[in-house]
Amino acid sequence: MSGNTFGKLFRVTSFGESHGVAVGCIIDGCPAGLELSEVDIQKELDKRKPTSGIASTKRSEGDEAKILSGVFEGKSTGTPIAVVVFNKDQHSTDYDAISKLFRPGHADFTFTKKYGFRDFRGGGRSSGRETIARVIAGAVAKKILVVKGITISGFVKEIGGVVAKNFSQKDLENVYSTEFRIPDKEACKKVESLIKKSIIKKDSLGGIIEVHAKGVPAGLGEPVFEKLDAEIAFAFMGIGAIKGVEIGSGFDSAKLTGSKNNDSIRIVNGKLKFLTNNSGGILGGLSNGEEIVVRAAVKPTSSIAQKQQTVSERMVDSDIEVIGRHDVCICPRVLPVAESMLAIVLVNALLENQKSRMEYLV
Amino acid sequence: MSGNTFGKLFRVTSFGESHGVAVGCIIDGCPAGLELSEVDIQKELDKRKPTSGIASTKRSEGDEAKILSGVFEGKSTGTPIAVVVFNKDQHSTDYDAISKLFRPGHADFTFTKKYGFRDFRGGGRSSGRETIARVIAGAVAKKILVVKGITISGFVKEIGGVVAKNFSQKDLENVYSTEFRIPDKEACKKVESLIKKSIIKKDSLGGIIEVHAKGVPAGLGEPVFEKLDAEIAFAFMGIGAIKGVEIGSGFDSAKLTGSKNNDSIRIVNGKLKFLTNNSGGILGGLSNGEEIVVRAAVKPTSSIAQKQQTVSERMVDSDIEVIGRHDVCICPRVLPVAESMLAIVLVNALLENQKSRMEYLV
Amino acid sequence: MSGNTFGKLFRVTSFGESHGVAVGCIIDGCPAGLELSEVDIQKELDKRKPTSGIASTKRSEGDEAKILSGVFEGKSTGTPIAVVVFNKDQHSTDYDAISKLFRPGHADFTFTKKYGFRDFRGGGRSSGRETIARVIAGAVAKKILVVKGITISGFVKEIGGVVAKNFSQKDLENVYSTEFRIPDKEACKKVESLIKKSIIKKDSLGGIIEVHAKGVPAGLGEPVFEKLDAEIAFAFMGIGAIKGVEIGSGFDSAKLTGSKNNDSIRIVNGKLKFLTNNSGGILGGLSNGEEIVVRAAVKPTSSIAQKQQTVSERMVDSDIEVIGRHDVCICPRVLPVAESMLAIVLVNALLENQKSRMEYLV
Amino acid sequence: MSGNTFGKLFRVTSFGESHGVAVGCIIDGCPAGLELSEVDIQKELDKRKPTSGIASTKRSEGDEAKILSGVFEGKSTGTPIAVVVFNKDQHSTDYDAISKLFRPGHADFTFTKKYGFRDFRGGGRSSGRETIARVIAGAVAKKILVVKGITISGFVKEIGGVVAKNFSQKDLENVYSTEFRIPDKEACKKVESLIKKSIIKKDSLGGIIEVHAKGVPAGLGEPVFEKLDAEIAFAFMGIGAIKGVEIGSGFDSAKLTGSKNNDSIRIVNGKLKFLTNNSGGILGGLSNGEEIVVRAAVKPTSSIAQKQQTVSERMVDSDIEVIGRHDVCICPRVLPVAESMLAIVLVNALLENQKSRMEYLV
Repeated sequence: MSGNTFGKLFRVTSFGESHGVAVGCIIDGCPAGLELSEVDIQKELDKRKPTSGIASTKRSEGDEAKILSGVFEGKSTGTPIAVVVFNKDQHSTDYDAISKLFRPGHADFTFTKKYGFRDFRGGGRSSGRETIARVIAGAVAKKILVVKGITISGFVKEIGGVVAKNFSQKDLENVYSTEFRIPDKEACKKVESLIKKSIIKKDSLGGIIEVHAKGVPAGLGEPVFEKLDAEIAFAFMGIGAIKGVEIGSGFDSAKLTGSKNNDSIRIVNGKLKFLTNNSGGILGGLSNGEEIVVRAAVKPTSSIAQKQQTVSERMVDSDIEVIGRHDVCICPRVLPVAESMLAIVLVNALLENQKSRMEYLV
Repeated sequence: MSGNTFGKLFRVTSFGESHGVAVGCIIDGCPAGLELSEVDIQKELDKRKPTSGIASTKRSEGDEAKILSGVFEGKSTGTPIAVVVFNKDQHSTDYDAISKLFRPGHADFTFTKKYGFRDFRGGGRSSGRETIARVIAGAVAKKILVVKGITISGFVKEIGGVVAKNFSQKDLENVYSTEFRIPDKEACKKVESLIKKSIIKKDSLGGIIEVHAKGVPAGLGEPVFEKLDAEIAFAFMGIGAIKGVEIGSGFDSAKLTGSKNNDSIRIVNGKLKFLTNNSGGILGGLSNGEEIVVRAAVKPTSSIAQKQQTVSERMVDSDIEVIGRHDVCICPRVLPVAESMLAIVLVNALLENQKSRMEYLV
Repeated sequence: MSGNTFGKLFRVTSFGESHGVAVGCIIDGCPAGLELSEVDIQKELDKRKPTSGIASTKRSEGDEAKILSGVFEGKSTGTPIAVVVFNKDQHSTDYDAISKLFRPGHADFTFTKKYGFRDFRGGGRSSGRETIARVIAGAVAKKILVVKGITISGFVKEIGGVVAKNFSQKDLENVYSTEFRIPDKEACKKVESLIKKSIIKKDSLGGIIEVHAKGVPAGLGEPVFEKLDAEIAFAFMGIGAIKGVEIGSGFDSAKLTGSKNNDSIRIVNGKLKFLTNNSGGILGGLSNGEEIVVRAAVKPTSSIAQKQQTVSERMVDSDIEVIGRHDVCICPRVLPVAESMLAIVLVNALLENQKSRMEYLV
Repeated sequence: MSGNTFGKLFRVTSFGESHGVAVGCIIDGCPAGLELSEVDIQKELDKRKPTSGIASTKRSEGDEAKILSGVFEGKSTGTPIAVVVFNKDQHSTDYDAISKLFRPGHADFTFTKKYGFRDFRGGGRSSGRETIARVIAGAVAKKILVVKGITISGFVKEIGGVVAKNFSQKDLENVYSTEFRIPDKEACKKVESLIKKSIIKKDSLGGIIEVHAKGVPAGLGEPVFEKLDAEIAFAFMGIGAIKGVEIGSGFDSAKLTGSKNNDSIRIVNGKLKFLTNNSGGILGGLSNGEEIVVRAAVKPTSSIAQKQQTVSERMVDSDIEVIGRHDVCICPRVLPVAESMLAIVLVNALLENQKSRMEYLV
């Protein structure tokens, strides 16, 4: 309830405002005996930082993760892992000019209606800084998954209508060394050009990200309400700028026939294999052993310096220009967050599955 | 856990297999004093029945809801409302021929991997009959919403690539009197023709449904993980055939600029009004007072009489023809289920919001 | 929430009023592959029925359990197990005389304050008939425990101040063949005499029950808030008439010194052994491998035919005589309910513990 | 799950080991608009500190609470309130001598069995320092309750068999200015003498605490499994040293007859009033408007300097003397923790009750 805890067995409880003292989380339910250090977390957290180039905010978010509990002699103890990142670069003054106006595309109005008032400093709790907690927990989740042979990866598939098409497995593996997390160099150049134009126009761009999980055993997920794809959709749609989620053939499946969309099954090299993967690795809400494929639509950054129509807290028509250090396109920074959420969902499904059969009980 | 309960405050716990004794649910958390009868539930349940025409299964699912508890003298008592529908038309024999084969597009393989074996009679728990419980709970949820001035509606937007474009508000209101729940007569005719062709080809069709909620007050939803759109995505993606969910401009927003996608705000007739609704009624995960708009991609029915490649439980390559009474396109029957899920999500958000401010406490 | 679901991984959701159509429950989270039949459930349910003798109500509660789902070919399928008992013997008329009065010791007043009105037929949801659902779920839980070598037993330790003192292991095993579930024959006779006197005086008696679990492996329970003893206290205190719960030396430990209360540890026959069991098998909230010992105080039956002072729904001073078929002492019938709750708690702890170590993950 | 979160609507998630970096918690679900500062929390935290006298540890636990989030301009914002207390006085070396031995009465053995190893520094997560998080959350809960006219108080009723008998309401109000939190001066002296003797004998003492809640409206609590008394028992039994919990007449009710134990009801000064309070303010699991009365048995401190029999991690018989700065009797320090837990339970019940009736919905 109240929405700041994610997961049922591997549970992340998040806290923190963009301009408060700190952000962080408590991870409860991490099995004992997992090798874990601040380095593991920092590595993932660094992926979430603004990229060096043109697409990102110029804030220097030198976020340093500090583990407060739950790790002893390099291993998880089974007790809660609290991790905190103290906020450093808090230019509250940036926000004074617009603190009484409801920024279009933002939660200013809705928070005010919900709580009776709001923390106007940079979005408060609705700031993208809350995703730090997600990445911290995702880092721990990924370490558990690796032990079980499961890996998570992702890339930016589309920005401003430019789609990544030509890329190799290696390009995918190196995606975090590219500016836009786009594995296709041609697409990258076009996007760079688009972003430059957007900056001039004081505008922003949306896009699509795609996240994969490999090595997921068949049978993860819970039937009916807590299907694996339902949990993934919940996890992804809860990320700030995401407005759509699809699994496998997703919205394209609406236009396919059953004979085209059904994945044929055959024994290949002695193993059951789906010959295509329109299901995106999930059948009837349970993983089927194929690669899990999720795509999400990321809306264009709401904060734009262009003049927009809005209303003040006193309910007076006003104009607003949201000037500040904002990402032109948030896709590259949403990507590690989405990867983290997929990792957390899978760890939960994995733990939940421990009790699906009498014969599994230790 | 285990996935058969939905909702945190208004909780639906579902049970039942397609060929078992009964399906049904327990609704816990319905406030006391709601007028409620079996007629209210039956009315919604009838929307889920196969339509009379060509698109649907020929099974006569004369599902009759019986309330076992929680209602006294025509009102909810605040205690659990158990509702049961006994299964009548169980042709288990239909399934014998294919009981040892994994049907493509179905959960046969994944259930077997999860539990070590499966109930092969018509999908068992993974059958669409589990949605009866969703519609029962949705009927109760809708009654609560109506008291608070909130109404849910929906329609089939697209089948087999044919999109509903021209329709009036009245067409929408009468959508359940149409065969395909498509409000556009032209589109309807084209779809009818497509479906006839599909029957001949022993194939099936997918589509897109759209569901709306009107009258939702601003501020519903919980920040961060339990955003209103996240809960909706969770609810929708958990419905059997759904492979994609989007809110407002959804996947289209990926191609828009911020200046186009942000909804301008103005005072109109003394009230704050968003001039467009790309947000789909949800900003920062909280309702903003505008109409909530959700679309979902429904995959083509997996059960097709065409020959398909599959594998048997003994891991031998086989062919399969899934003959039986199956819907060519499931969209018209998914629609009331999706409406129900949106209703359940909104009731939960409404109840959760009772405690968002100190001043709300009675 | 709303209080009708118990357990986190093995979850029981209960429904039903004393004078409604039926009572029952849905059990979600039972691992697949457990041998289970209606006979297993009926056997436990019969323990809860009124005993043939003088202590119990004369209602013929011929409760028959019917499984509606979740069991296929004699085994649990991993999906929800719904079990229902239809109410047969509903003498609503018995209650008419007092339907406008708040019965002392009952929930009539508090339900009215909570919900605005109440189901006055025999207590409605606050009737002891809700415990049928607990025993049904307990029957399933016990079957899981037996597979893991854990057994639950119990007895009535005290009624009306008469304490069971002299009894053998065999007496304990046969306790359900005695009228009062008291293993000590001498005590039994004294209690019989007390009960006869109580009937004449139109009064009732309280008592103490004791429940044991043997074979529980060390390490079950979750630290801090969800300690095993906390879960047991929650489970037991939630049973209607129970007003106190203690583990091991319990309230006596308040008078002991540390040197007396601490259980010494020694290696005995190659195994770590606690030489005494003041801890009641639980240390730091986790099972320690010794027998778990729980005692609970059961208040005297609230329904007595003696004249008592009360108030009517219209807030007028009144007298009330609660005439009907009530148990003089409820202890013998609370016992199987308490055993069931302990079984449910232990199954949850067992399932939860599957994920305590990385090395346990299958 | 995993046990470090308490509460369903007002949720406390706790973290921290005795010898780690910090302890603290995240409180999620505090309604917006509650006046709150670090002073409010510190005031309660100070009650938990060792008393100046002879009964307590000589550690200087100068615990300072720091709010990291969720409070803005002196009021709760509705978002998570993170509070941290950094550990200062960590004499890990004290524990080296016994780090390989299982201390009798402690969780050393059970943690090892659960997790495969343990944090041996002062109990790690099973240390009493985890109660800091409880008191922090209790401080916030108490502030909510006060707004609704509910107050929590408590006292130590018994230590080492010496019972507090003669005291006034004023003595109760000043109980935190006494050394043992015992309101009866005569009893206090006797206890002082007992404690001195215990120190000489290198032994420890147990006792009983009693906690009250006044001003609780009728109707709080949820029927069946989540009865108000069940939640209280869960909350109290989860506190480290507590081995028994009772409500109202509790274990004494086992010896009473119904005519004695039932509380008569009368209209007094125009209001419904229970003439006695054997129910302890709870009927059928719901508050009845009378004072809520809870007692708990606290076992004697497990850490004693006397020689005791134990076993080492290598399963060798050993002797142990637990030398260190330990409280002779922990009752005075358990008291504020128990008060906090009652406050948290009541806030949850209060928030839950907001949705019990249709007419309550805002």
